Amino acid sequence: MSRSPLRFDIITLFPDFFTSSLQSGLMGKAIANQIAEVHFTNPRDFTTDKHRKVDDEPYGGGVGMLLKPEPIFAAVESLPVLPRREVVLMTPQGEPMTQPLFQYMAEEDDQIVVICGHYEGVDERVLQLVTREVSLGDFVLTCGEIPALALLNGVMRLRPGTVGKAESLKLESFEDGLLDYPQYTRPAEFRGMEVPAVLRSGNHEAIARWRKDQQIERTHQRRPDLWERWQQQSADADG
Amino acid sequence: MSRSPLRFDIITLFPDFFTSSLQSGLMGKAIANQIAEVHFTNPRDFTTDKHRKVDDEPYGGGVGMLLKPEPIFAAVESLPVLPRREVVLMTPQGEPMTQPLFQYMAEEDDQIVVICGHYEGVDERVLQLVTREVSLGDFVLTCGEIPALALLNGVMRLRPGTVGKAESLKLESFEDGLLDYPQYTRPAEFRGMEVPAVLRSGNHEAIARWRKDQQIERTHQRRPDLWERWQQQSADADG
Repeated sequence: MSRSPLRFDIITLFPDFFTSSLQSGLMGKAIANQIAEVHFTNPRDFTTDKHRKVDDEPYGGGVGMLLKPEPIFAAVESLPVLPRREVVLMTPQGEPMTQPLFQYMAEEDDQIVVICGHYEGVDERVLQLVTREVSLGDFVLTCGEIPALALLNGVMRLRPGTVGKAESLKLESFEDGLLDYPQYTRPAEFRGMEVPAVLRSGNHEAIARWRKDQQIERTHQRRPDLWERWQQQSADADG
Repeated sequence: MSRSPLRFDIITLFPDFFTSSLQSGLMGKAIANQIAEVHFTNPRDFTTDKHRKVDDEPYGGGVGMLLKPEPIFAAVESLPVLPRREVVLMTPQGEPMTQPLFQYMAEEDDQIVVICGHYEGVDERVLQLVTREVSLGDFVLTCGEIPALALLNGVMRLRPGTVGKAESLKLESFEDGLLDYPQYTRPAEFRGMEVPAVLRSGNHEAIARWRKDQQIERTHQRRPDLWERWQQQSADADG
């Protein structure tokens, strides 16, 4: 690959959180092969008071602590700036993480700065630094480090060279707007459960039809929201 | 706390992935304080062939490798069985992870077995072991370890004693079906950006009204799907 590595800058109070997870599997390989690089910047290193305070109480009352704006501004402003750059805040208030977002970032970005929230949240003025707020889902976690890890993984694996050519050519879940079909490997029979005969038939047309039917049925049953969108898109494409 | 620790059993090919992330922050504390315990079981330790093979090609053709059923069955069947137990498969085909799911698990479960998928997926027959399939979101990651980490974190933090009493009393994002309101901490002015006057007014009623208005407006603007559901629920409650 002649393409430059995608640079991630993680703004985090807990850089050690990432150590072991970035060493194993495909992320470890992507970093070793210089497809991506990951740098950590700790806002605590940019505090100026003797207690190195990164959080404070919310104005207007309420429980919990907020991340103060100054150390985060200083941390982000200490970074190099590559041409095509995004600054992402991980927050439940952001746009939901999706496959098209990963695809966009993998294709368009040279540098992704990821600010990990903590405690009860971050001072609203930090949004001045931010080009995009992203949410992992409609639930609450204790930290932004886990959503950051999901973003890193999902974007990194779409960069050329991270996953093998064969694997990357497969039409993936969500790419056609449907859930994946059921998959089976050896043995043909396991504890009385058999692999469906069609998959062992060698009839490629029948296999393709069975898989597509399974995708549609499964999506309809489990995720009517996705199924309705898929129906609409199919209708639009036909019309 | 007299309550027994919540037991997590993670079925993973990469137990080292979790090492550093479970040491820091609130998860580290919850484990140290015996609010939760996390055990790892590697399907590779349950292979019987000399190459310790955990994956194989899909029936019916296609690229990528699938996790074989036998080592996963053997791994899960090697575990102790606590009374209220779930076996969760992390898969994009599952029900979306939500705050009510975390609440249910934190309240009702003694043991949560989490099977982390890998490669292109797992043999469909593994579903025989599973009581629930859970998806982190509508996107593709290289491994089930990151979704597993999100589930651990989201459930663990809801167990009594993990987060401080004050913090836990706060009405959180999604609990009332709305996104959170903007929050500010010191300094009152930062780079020309001021904390809204109402938050410094000391008028608790005005602050509560401002926050609720901000929640509704922000949810309407950013997440019309959540806003519509909230409207419907409010209408039902009034009717």
